[in-house]
Amino acid sequence: MSTSESPVTWIMLAVNESTIRGYPHASISSRGAFEWTLQKIVRSNASGFKLLFLHVQVPDEDGFDDMDSIYASPEDFKNMKNRDRARGLHLLEFFVTRCHEIGVACESWIKKGDPKEVICLEVKRIQPDLLILGSRGLGPFQRVFVGTVSEFCVKHAECPVVTIKRRSDETPQDPVDD
Amino acid sequence: MSTSESPVTWIMLAVNESTIRGYPHASISSRGAFEWTLQKIVRSNASGFKLLFLHVQVPDEDGFDDMDSIYASPEDFKNMKNRDRARGLHLLEFFVTRCHEIGVACESWIKKGDPKEVICLEVKRIQPDLLILGSRGLGPFQRVFVGTVSEFCVKHAECPVVTIKRRSDETPQDPVDD
Repeated sequence: MSTSESPVTWIMLAVNESTIRGYPHASISSRGAFEWTLQKIVRSNASGFKLLFLHVQVPDEDGFDDMDSIYASPEDFKNMKNRDRARGLHLLEFFVTRCHEIGVACESWIKKGDPKEVICLEVKRIQPDLLILGSRGLGPFQRVFVGTVSEFCVKHAECPVVTIKRRSDETPQDPVDD
Repeated sequence: MSTSESPVTWIMLAVNESTIRGYPHASISSRGAFEWTLQKIVRSNASGFKLLFLHVQVPDEDGFDDMDSIYASPEDFKNMKNRDRARGLHLLEFFVTRCHEIGVACESWIKKGDPKEVICLEVKRIQPDLLILGSRGLGPFQRVFVGTVSEFCVKHAECPVVTIKRRSDETPQDPVDD
């Protein structure tokens, strides 16, 4: 039997920004999930895979740093939107650049909304073979307050999902940070 | 960057018997998870992976067909145990034979006990990179009565877990069958 002729495996990775490392770094768990995908799944078979990077921006959260800004004209809003877009693009650039170095095909794009819902909608639309999510690996007590995207997607995404927990030696002092 | 030198990716697959196709067929969901692993993950890169097949036999369930048998001597129990062992080996043979055809390294073994607990214990012992489980994809109502091994393992196994739902066109008349 030959498996070499089957179509390329599409792996979707949802990635987000770090809460601590300063912009535009990827979160620890996003990077971990990405590195795991390369090392354990893609390995040396770059031509067999296509990676699809989805970054979901939460509108409120992204504007939070700008609390002291004054918005007086439609132009201000346009500038803000351009800034958001630039932030998202910088984040995605990290992943796309790495993929090009390795020679694995990829696509990346930005959506706005509630990450868990947007991820599931994008899975439905694109139908990847596998969705890979980084996770902070929070305990049940912490989860009550912060919720987890991965738990929701494992239940609701219409494709197989694998959650990659953050390595314990990479957990920041406050485990809610990432 | 080269990913070709990283150690082989160990993928554990927990497999069980079909409830309908007659012995020693693998269950629909086990076969589905296996085929998915070959087509979507291993692909043509057979040398990058090692598949670990674990078959957990439930002691009560396996003896159920023998309700009319009479056990009168220690020899009877030995025969029964040998029969169980033969059943498990036949099941594993299917997967091991396929792996040899494709040229992917594999190991397989049998354990007795509660599947969900044994799977998690074996993950702890062997530390695979990924655990892949077939799932019947039952709805919440059906799950109340039959429980699901995959749901337990997603929560408790100490490695990334991916659940492969049975294809809808392969679902038997009674979805609890497999």
